[in-house]
Amino acid sequence: MMYDTIPTARPATPLLDRIDQPSQLKTLDTAQLLQLADELRLYLLYAAGQSGGHFGANLGVVELTIALHHALDTPKDRLVWDVGHQAYAHKVLTGRREALPTIRSKDGLAAFPTREESAFDTFGVGHSSTSISAALGMALALRYQNDERRVACVVGDGAMTAGMAFEAMNDAVQHNADVLVVLNDNDMSISGSVGGFAKHLGALWKQGQSVYLADNGEVSIQPHPNWTFNPRVNSNNSAENLFRAIGFEYFGPVDGHNLKELVRILALLKDRKGPRLLHVYTTKGKGFLPAEADPIGYHAITKITSQATSPVKAPQQLPKPQKYADVFGQFLCDQAALDDRLLAITPAMCEGSGMVQFASQYPERFFDVAIAEQHAVTLAAGMACEGLKPVVAIYSTFLQRGYDQLIHDVALQNLDVTFGIDRAGLVGEDGPTHAGAYDYAYMRTIPHLILMAPKDENECRQMLHTAYQYPGPAAVRYPRGTGPGSQIASEFTTLEIGKAEIVAQHYLDASQQIALLAFGSMVTPALQAAEQLASPQLGVTVVNMRFIKPLDQQLLARLSAQVNAFITIEEHAIMGGAGSAVNESLQAQHLLKPVLNLGLPDAFLHQATHPQMLAECGLNGDGITRDVQRFMQTLAGTI
Amino acid sequence: MMYDTIPTARPATPLLDRIDQPSQLKTLDTAQLLQLADELRLYLLYAAGQSGGHFGANLGVVELTIALHHALDTPKDRLVWDVGHQAYAHKVLTGRREALPTIRSKDGLAAFPTREESAFDTFGVGHSSTSISAALGMALALRYQNDERRVACVVGDGAMTAGMAFEAMNDAVQHNADVLVVLNDNDMSISGSVGGFAKHLGALWKQGQSVYLADNGEVSIQPHPNWTFNPRVNSNNSAENLFRAIGFEYFGPVDGHNLKELVRILALLKDRKGPRLLHVYTTKGKGFLPAEADPIGYHAITKITSQATSPVKAPQQLPKPQKYADVFGQFLCDQAALDDRLLAITPAMCEGSGMVQFASQYPERFFDVAIAEQHAVTLAAGMACEGLKPVVAIYSTFLQRGYDQLIHDVALQNLDVTFGIDRAGLVGEDGPTHAGAYDYAYMRTIPHLILMAPKDENECRQMLHTAYQYPGPAAVRYPRGTGPGSQIASEFTTLEIGKAEIVAQHYLDASQQIALLAFGSMVTPALQAAEQLASPQLGVTVVNMRFIKPLDQQLLARLSAQVNAFITIEEHAIMGGAGSAVNESLQAQHLLKPVLNLGLPDAFLHQATHPQMLAECGLNGDGITRDVQRFMQTLAGTI
Repeated sequence: MMYDTIPTARPATPLLDRIDQPSQLKTLDTAQLLQLADELRLYLLYAAGQSGGHFGANLGVVELTIALHHALDTPKDRLVWDVGHQAYAHKVLTGRREALPTIRSKDGLAAFPTREESAFDTFGVGHSSTSISAALGMALALRYQNDERRVACVVGDGAMTAGMAFEAMNDAVQHNADVLVVLNDNDMSISGSVGGFAKHLGALWKQGQSVYLADNGEVSIQPHPNWTFNPRVNSNNSAENLFRAIGFEYFGPVDGHNLKELVRILALLKDRKGPRLLHVYTTKGKGFLPAEADPIGYHAITKITSQATSPVKAPQQLPKPQKYADVFGQFLCDQAALDDRLLAITPAMCEGSGMVQFASQYPERFFDVAIAEQHAVTLAAGMACEGLKPVVAIYSTFLQRGYDQLIHDVALQNLDVTFGIDRAGLVGEDGPTHAGAYDYAYMRTIPHLILMAPKDENECRQMLHTAYQYPGPAAVRYPRGTGPGSQIASEFTTLEIGKAEIVAQHYLDASQQIALLAFGSMVTPALQAAEQLASPQLGVTVVNMRFIKPLDQQLLARLSAQVNAFITIEEHAIMGGAGSAVNESLQAQHLLKPVLNLGLPDAFLHQATHPQMLAECGLNGDGITRDVQRFMQTLAGTI
Repeated sequence: MMYDTIPTARPATPLLDRIDQPSQLKTLDTAQLLQLADELRLYLLYAAGQSGGHFGANLGVVELTIALHHALDTPKDRLVWDVGHQAYAHKVLTGRREALPTIRSKDGLAAFPTREESAFDTFGVGHSSTSISAALGMALALRYQNDERRVACVVGDGAMTAGMAFEAMNDAVQHNADVLVVLNDNDMSISGSVGGFAKHLGALWKQGQSVYLADNGEVSIQPHPNWTFNPRVNSNNSAENLFRAIGFEYFGPVDGHNLKELVRILALLKDRKGPRLLHVYTTKGKGFLPAEADPIGYHAITKITSQATSPVKAPQQLPKPQKYADVFGQFLCDQAALDDRLLAITPAMCEGSGMVQFASQYPERFFDVAIAEQHAVTLAAGMACEGLKPVVAIYSTFLQRGYDQLIHDVALQNLDVTFGIDRAGLVGEDGPTHAGAYDYAYMRTIPHLILMAPKDENECRQMLHTAYQYPGPAAVRYPRGTGPGSQIASEFTTLEIGKAEIVAQHYLDASQQIALLAFGSMVTPALQAAEQLASPQLGVTVVNMRFIKPLDQQLLARLSAQVNAFITIEEHAIMGGAGSAVNESLQAQHLLKPVLNLGLPDAFLHQATHPQMLAECGLNGDGITRDVQRFMQTLAGTI
């Protein structure tokens, strides 16, 4: 059934309501399974309207999810979802139906499968392309134990472009492992698939035939059954099959919305041995007209707050505060207009990184390399070798994937690459898999690298410009979402490298003095805390540190002569973070002062809204005030 | 010509002696090129005997290197060598002939191509699988600038298994980039290639035909020319071609020792457009009988010190000190005998990580996943999900490749995976690409993870056991080469998590007291320094910290009450390292003490011997003594 509105009231789903665990699926006949698919789709529409979140991918795998749980004996059999933003239907069918509208909210269901949430979530995911490795690990472990459980994973065509999926396939063949890989090919990662692999997938079904597995186990080449057919490329490499080349048995492509055929073929494939791949073609947003028409826009939605009958795609903002991603995008366009050496690279995050305008304005300078962070970084290094000035847009959490390349290919060679690091710090609803909580630590230990964090939108723009002007590797890390609001200067200003700025001074004549050394997003709450803390007895200086590396050592020395204590504040793990850099610098300068390091605790934090998470960590004005007061009391006690 | 001894005197190489830059190759006729290849091979043999270093790979690419420089106009045209341990012939032909015997020594040629050494070294390498990304970056940058220079890279079959090579190929096709990839297929990475990809390469030439490019540009399928043929696998997937599947034009395989054919086909291929791959089959160690017979043993050799006519493969050691890699290998075997849940994983470093015995003793528990660090880590996570206890052997510098997987797949899920991290700290002759100088920083910021470093061989063994017993993610990092020498206890002892040990106390009644907090390999030099420093006026306590995470906070507090200052000492970057963790802990406990953080400077260090490098960094007994004395003088001045 095709829907064109999102229900705002709980729809009637009588059959679905009876399914509390997937084993019940085995008792349903084909007609009931079809009805279940219809109800499940409608329920997903309703729930997504309630909670927001990933959308298109979930509608696309309704039939596949039912068929997989019908075929397998989950959770005894292992089913791993790659990325996991398509696992809503899986959550509904595995006992979490009524909780689904809580997804991505504090104390609600996690955005992605997580092992602690359910035995059916066999492997925690969030980042893409891990599922084949994980499934292979399970399969080899089970074989070693002579355990007959089955192992399957579902991986999108977009996730297949990341190298680790290839590494895992290579290894699965080496071990002739009993792993079923279901390739959910919806012709896009998030921004639309790119590259040779996507063309190849197109070629595989463009050739108009399918590798068919008959009920008697015979494999034959059959004409495509009569399903919607939408050739993407005119390729002449149809004789090749990458999966067979690497050594997988290949089946399909099959129509991922033909539930009956999926049930049939998965029943056969689940017990076949060796590494095998079923190529399933699905339509992102299937069954919801607006999403089928705009799959990128409907990748994820925000929740419906009123009577709206269509999804609220992005909340309309006042002119300020602006999204940092948009500040980055505008910087790119403006800087590119001034300097034709600028090239921009994204690993499949064109929209998320705010690059849509740049991509359309400068298509010949825009490089979406697919989900391939390692390659993105080294590609930039290669470009820099030819005298160009590449800018890599990447999320903090995903730069972890390009870490070796950052050290070995960019920093070691001191190449002129600029990094715009988005989603740094806590990320709210996406939860711990996407936290950008480690970049200060893993970057500041790297020689040659410059690292900055802005206090607001305008400073982000000027830092990006500064990083761009800097003739070596330089990075600016900024949070998800909007800044505190600031007037953005259209002209560029280059900041002095390694210089902090004092942004507030209260009661300079007080007998007790402290300095709040705030990094990036923590400048605003530090200013709030300073107002609460300052008194005729306690002078408070607030510093926007600007640079994590190099630190403003001179300012630290100067302040050290004036204050009784420092407080460092960062939206980053305390361990190894920017505060830790301050500690190092003070010791190196023989400046002995009490320092309170505030930041994220040494733990993976559950999802909530960004403000909720900051509050939990004490990283808002009130929290900082409270922690500083406690610290000052302790100091008074110890001195 | 086939050689069976390594010349110890400089052989006569009259033609080679005239080649000071590769453009001269174009003036040579075929007979002269063949003579040059002979002379070059003999000279490489001689030089390798003088300097030690990578061996087999260089002998294998003599003809290919000549042919590439003959075809291309280097350095104007861009030639990128993957890994670079096969670039000795390249260095000889590009003006560094006489310097070759200095390779890998202090102030000598670098082990790998480096941009600062020569304009012919277009991209610094060391880690594998970066070359296609770098070459693609160059090609796209050149195209953007309407620059007609050609771009080629040479990548081994082993390096092709790393995902980033696949990411780069995918992207090259998307841009229809003008990149020539020369696949140097010598049927092994370092330990022998493994997996589906290697089987596929075997299948490509097993089918007995070759994609031939005629002088008139016509492409045809031809029977293999008459060259040595050594089918590896009996594969039935010969119809497929992975490179064509992904969208590359594919040529070959061709005999990589048929210089005349290489010259012919590269002359044609260099100006062909689009992403194209030439599959070249070479023999590792070609032309040197012992190396052809034992390519793994001759991957690298140590220098010939005396009149020896065959390479000294590994210096015979006294029973102690032992190589840490061997300690790890013995631990694996012993622990495996006690616990059948132990599985061991290596990304293509079976020999280097000391796992040969384990692999032969427990083949069903040994997993060489090829050069695929990302996959190696997540594979372990998958195994741990099934209740097994995987141990991942990995070099510190290569764990950078699996960093995201360490955070996202292992630590976040608190999975029981043990990491044996070899080559941590400085690595000597391999130089900055292989330095394991950042692991404390990038690991200690990760929640859930336990991180240890041993003072000697026996402690390494007990720490590995402790990590193994620990029911979450735990890592032990140890240096390249041998330890200080210690009696290894065969029985296992579990160390208390987070507990340091005091290893020396001098002059506890002195009025001035300091504590040297030494991590891992720095315990021995710290003990030496303590003996030099201690006096009736200065008491010195030496602590083997053992744990970087969790730190022994209680001991710090106890010592803090006794000492005037702390000195932290680590073979790791000071920025964000273990000393930084000490600083954090002292501040968190409100313990205000001067701390001197000793460790590696914020720079990439050139190669030298390991002791030379340590001395340069002040990380031996004398250096520590000197720095501590200076520190104490400064303290006396400031107090």
